Order: sequence, then C-alpha cells, then structure tokens
Amino acid sequence: MKKSVYLDYAAATPMDPKVLDAMRPYFSDLFYNPSALYLNARAVKKVLSDARSLVAGLLAVRPTEIIFTAGGSEANNLAIRGIMEQFPGKKLLISSIEHESARGPAKLYDYQEIKVDSQALLDIKDLAECLDDDTVLISTIYASNEVGTIQDLSAVAELVNNAKIDRKKRGLKTPLYLHTDATQATLFMNISAKTLGVDLMTLNGGKIYGPKQSGVLFVRSGIDLEPLIYGGGQEKGMRSGTENVPSIVGFSVALEIASELAKTENQRLSKLRDELRLQLEKLPREITFHGHPKKRLPNHLSFAVQGHDNERLMMELDELGFMVATGSACSASSAEVSHVLTAMGVGEEIARSTLRVTLGRQTTSADIKAFTHALADVLVLKQDK
Amino acid sequence: MKKSVYLDYAAATPMDPKVLDAMRPYFSDLFYNPSALYLNARAVKKVLSDARSLVAGLLAVRPTEIIFTAGGSEANNLAIRGIMEQFPGKKLLISSIEHESARGPAKLYDYQEIKVDSQALLDIKDLAECLDDDTVLISTIYASNEVGTIQDLSAVAELVNNAKIDRKKRGLKTPLYLHTDATQATLFMNISAKTLGVDLMTLNGGKIYGPKQSGVLFVRSGIDLEPLIYGGGQEKGMRSGTENVPSIVGFSVALEIASELAKTENQRLSKLRDELRLQLEKLPREITFHGHPKKRLPNHLSFAVQGHDNERLMMELDELGFMVATGSACSASSAEVSHVLTAMGVGEEIARSTLRVTLGRQTTSADIKAFTHALADVLVLKQDK
Repeated sequence: MKKSVYLDYAAATPMDPKVLDAMRPYFSDLFYNPSALYLNARAVKKVLSDARSLVAGLLAVRPTEIIFTAGGSEANNLAIRGIMEQFPGKKLLISSIEHESARGPAKLYDYQEIKVDSQALLDIKDLAECLDDDTVLISTIYASNEVGTIQDLSAVAELVNNAKIDRKKRGLKTPLYLHTDATQATLFMNISAKTLGVDLMTLNGGKIYGPKQSGVLFVRSGIDLEPLIYGGGQEKGMRSGTENVPSIVGFSVALEIASELAKTENQRLSKLRDELRLQLEKLPREITFHGHPKKRLPNHLSFAVQGHDNERLMMELDELGFMVATGSACSASSAEVSHVLTAMGVGEEIARSTLRVTLGRQTTSADIKAFTHALADVLVLKQDK
Repeated sequence: MKKSVYLDYAAATPMDPKVLDAMRPYFSDLFYNPSALYLNARAVKKVLSDARSLVAGLLAVRPTEIIFTAGGSEANNLAIRGIMEQFPGKKLLISSIEHESARGPAKLYDYQEIKVDSQALLDIKDLAECLDDDTVLISTIYASNEVGTIQDLSAVAELVNNAKIDRKKRGLKTPLYLHTDATQATLFMNISAKTLGVDLMTLNGGKIYGPKQSGVLFVRSGIDLEPLIYGGGQEKGMRSGTENVPSIVGFSVALEIASELAKTENQRLSKLRDELRLQLEKLPREITFHGHPKKRLPNHLSFAVQGHDNERLMMELDELGFMVATGSACSASSAEVSHVLTAMGVGEEIARSTLRVTLGRQTTSADIKAFTHALADVLVLKQDK
C-alpha cells in the first residue's frame, strides 16, 4: 500500500497511544458509576476529581471551574445557550469567522457579527461600536480553524473589562461575559484562562490527540449556565449524565501531553510551515495565502491556487496519497462558500480554489517536500489536459 | 485482596472486551473526521454508516431513524426538549417514575405526571384522563431503573393511536408522540421500535456493556427535533459535533452482543434473581419487595429490610465486598426519598430501608449465596449492637 501523508490535523488528530493507555483501566475494570456510594465507585470519583484538577491546573483555574462535555460543539453550545437562555431579549456578539458550533446557537438569539479585516483579525473598533448595554455575551474564536489567524484576546478582554466598569459606574446590572473557542489554539497558545481574561473557554479533545467527543468548558466561578442536558445533576448540574470516565481521563492526559510538547512542537511546526510556504511560492502558479502572516497557528497554512478548483485539487492530491482540506471538515460537504473567507473579503473564485494544509506531530520535512512535489505534479497534469 | 461482588449493574456495566476490540482501530489509526472528503475519511464514514445500519437492524427500523448521542441522558433530553421546544404552550405527560434525565427536561414545560399503582405499573386510566388535545408528547420509562417493573408499552401505544385517530376525525392538527426510555430494558426486552409502536426511544450504551456516554435516540421518520447542539449538522442536524466513531462502533457491537445474549441471560438471571428472592424470604427479618412480581426485569430486585437504614446496610455490605445500591446511582448522593417509591405509595420509612440489587453477566449462583450470607451477617451484627 502506498504511504499516505495526513495534512488535515485541524479536522482530526490521531489519539496519542499514551491517552489510550490512560483510559484503559476505566473501560472494564474501574467501570463503576462515580455517583454510586461504595468504595470502588468512590475510587472512580477520585479519578474523575484528579483529572479535573489536572485540567484546571493546566488552565490555571480552579477544578470547580471545569465542566466536562461531550466535545467542543457541545461546549460552544453550552456556553452560548447557557448564558443567552438566562437573558431573553438581550444581545450576543460573535466574530464573523466563528465555527458553526458557535454560529448555530448564536442564530437562536439576537446576535450580531463583528467584522474581521482581510487577515481575519477581529475589528476591535467594530466590536466597540456594536457593544451596547444590552450585550451580555461576546464569543470569539481564539485561532481560526479555517485560516489560522490568532486573535488578540487580551484586547477584547480589555474592552470587555472597560465596558463592565462603565456599566457599574452607571449602576447598570446587566452582566457581560467573554467566551472563546480555543479548539485550534489549545495545542500551541497560552491557555491560562486567568491571564487571557476570558469568562468561558471551549477545549476540544478530538483536536488535541485526545478522545473524540471529549471536551471542556471553562466557566469562571460565579457564572451560572442554563444546562442543555438536565438529569442526575453531574458537572455541577450543568451537564447531566453518568460521567464518561475513560474519556475524561483521556482528555486530561491529552491536554497534559499537549502542554509538555507545546513549545517544541510550536518551533518544529513553524519551521515546517515556513518551509512549505517557501516551496509553494516557488511553484509556477499564482498562490494567495490567507490569514495573518505572523499572528497565526504554527501548523496552519491556507492558500488559494488561483484558477484551480479546490475540490478537484483535493481529490487529485488524495489519489497521490496526500490528505488536505478544502475548508473546515464540518462545512466540507456543503456547497456554500466559506463564511470565513467571505468575511475576510476573499472573492468566490479565490475561495473556491483554497486549500487548507494543517501539520501535526507525525508531519516531517520529507512530507512537506513530497506534498509540494505532488501539488506541482497535479498542477502540471491539469495544465497538460 | 478480598474478592468483591458487584451487584449494581443497573448503575453501570463493565465494557465487554469485544466492544473495546471493535473500537480500537478508530482511536489512532482510522481516526479521520468522517466529514472530510478524502478516501480514508470516506472509509470512516462507511464504518459509521455500517454501525448505524447494525443498530437500525436490531431495532427493526431504518438507519435514517437512528441518532447517535453522547449518552442516555442526552437522548432523553433531546427527545423531550426536541419535541416540546417546537410547541410552546403545549402539554407533556410523563410517568411519575421517570429517570431524572426525563423529569429534568419535562419540568421546563407544561407537564403532568401520570400515576402508577403500588407495583409501579402505569395507570392507563389516569393517562387517558390527563391526555387532552393540547398534549403533544407522552414519555414513559420502559422498565423502571429503581424497582424493575416493566410497563405495558403496547397499551400506551394503543391509547396514543386511538387519540391520534380521534384528533384526525375532528380535524385537529396537533401531533402526539410517544417516547420511551428503554435504558434498562434494552438488555432483556423486545426493542423493536416498530412492534412497540413508539415514536422515540432512548438507548444507553453505558448500561449494556458498551461505552459510557454512548447512546441512541430512535426518531421515527418524519419527526423533526429541535437540536440541543447546533453546528456542523451531523446526525441529520439533530446532534452536531464530529462523530465519536470508536464510541458509536462500540455501541453498535454492545447492542449486537446484547441481542445475541438476551434470551439466555434472561433465563439465567431470572433464575438467579428468584433464588435471591427465596433466600431473602428465609431471613429472619421482614422484607418488603418492590415492583411487580412478574412484569419485571430478570436481573432486578428491590426490597426493604424493615427497620434498617439502607445507607448503613449498603456501607456494611460494601465492607464485606458486596456492592449494591440504595436507589438509582444518580440520586444516591441526594438526601431526598426516591420519587419512584413515593409515587408507588411506599412510606418514607420503608423507602429509607430499601436496597436495589441488580445482577449481570458476571453474576453467579455463588455470588447470590455469598450475598445473602453477608446480608444475614450484617443484620445479625446490627442486632447484637
């Protein structure tokens, strides 16, 4: 079988074997319901509590501020719906480049999209203008899954903070919260919720070499959420259901490994990404790179090969053994043009020739070279037709 | 280490090793996002579709009628909220012995509880009286997690059907749906949604030797649900989020094994359960058995040892190596008396001396004998004090 090169780490990551090792005892041996009262169940409850503490430590927050969810989409929905359901008629601001799992729930409420510039950076002036006394929640993605741009969260947090001080001065009681979807940022960026100044933060195990549909919503102390799932009252009543102990343990270990590798992987992948960019620039084709050139994820490159249909490119690369994306996996099957590229002012033609290449732990320099050769082959082949 | 005997299979089941074997390829090898478009991802999508077909076959329904959820609580919430959110001001009827994951969401709407008799059988007359033209959903548990009584779902389905015919005759457009939580019934009962006549049915992987927080909601063709989780549009838009492929595969295999073992385990466990009951009756204590003597789960015994505090009994049995429950695991940590026993007319004193013993695949005749001896010991010790 032909060796295949996976370059779509933003869509899914292979689970780290150490994660499975950590999960293993909780499938068939320590399988007890953590809510039961006998000693074996209490031991499992302790395991759960240790995993919570581990995650909390890595985010520099308290264990009681960690809500385990079944994935990133659930965490985004819980953050947005959990706040907005409590304030009927109030307003929500989201960036115009959010993931569908934030856009979807946002559309249930009175929401407004904040502009981004051509490099996908949030327009803080537009945010300041849209933010009024009815706004209770701002939700912005930390790093774009589609184009890799990293937002300046501290600028957003500062704006939020000033607005809160101003409201207080004027005797207004309406709260204001800041949520960020850190799904793609978790592996590489500062995720200390404390220093970031966010009130709510989404993490997603399936994108950090952990279990699929594992996730965390950080919820700052004192914030109540209307649950999506009612029942036995697990996760402080915010996410009922018998806890998925193996998955929670797996998530905590994946996050720990991510934190250990963050620095070296950041450097290694930035270098590979720059190498890829250089090689692409040498191709005898007009290539347009999307997103911010500096403020971007180290593993992320999004670019258009002008005049070439991206789905066709993707499939031809696939035939040669290279897996890349045309956009986010979630919207890949949809015929619509990416709302992210549209928000950045990218025209439909360029959008429809855009590929997303995302690198990961298994990516090597040889993979990058082989990929550029394959792309060159595909482009030449197309030219000859 | 002392051998311990687990008798709380209604709270949690150990995952079948065959389930883990089936899941294994999808953690780190075939980890691709099923929504991606390259061949490897399409192969994973096929795996997902095969798992869906397997589950659908076992329920005698169509694959498109299967929604994979992250657990039974989510499935119950999705069924109830998913219907009720579409009909503001309309009414919901639930049995008075539902699990918290049905009671919880029900309380968000105009709901009414249907009486049960002293054996926990639903009062069909009361249901008929409460059912009016504003009712859009009836939700009743198939087999009680607390006392093991099995409901006559076909009688409920018949009532629903007649009401629908009557509404049609009178030109009323309000729909009427029947949901059942089959969490505890799945291992032993008929789960053919078609012959049961239900519109929605909850299954829970964590209670059938499958993965925790895996679950299914059967949704009859043509029924729309308001999602709890919006986003990428997975699961026909009813449950967004990158699919948990290993967990879904694990669930499907767990359900297949359950179906293969249903008949023999039904017989084997009924016998053990009857043996247990006989031995308990011989104890020199007044024992009150809860639930229906015949229409009950084969693995389930709920009984009160009059005059003895159940938490204390539970802990003393635990010390001797026997794990049993005082109620459902979800409410075990709460100080409230079981709403199920209360609905059955059981007094607080009896409720507070009630134990739940549930048997499973690992339970042997020797376990039953050892348990009765241990209980006898505990009771005698208490007498001597």
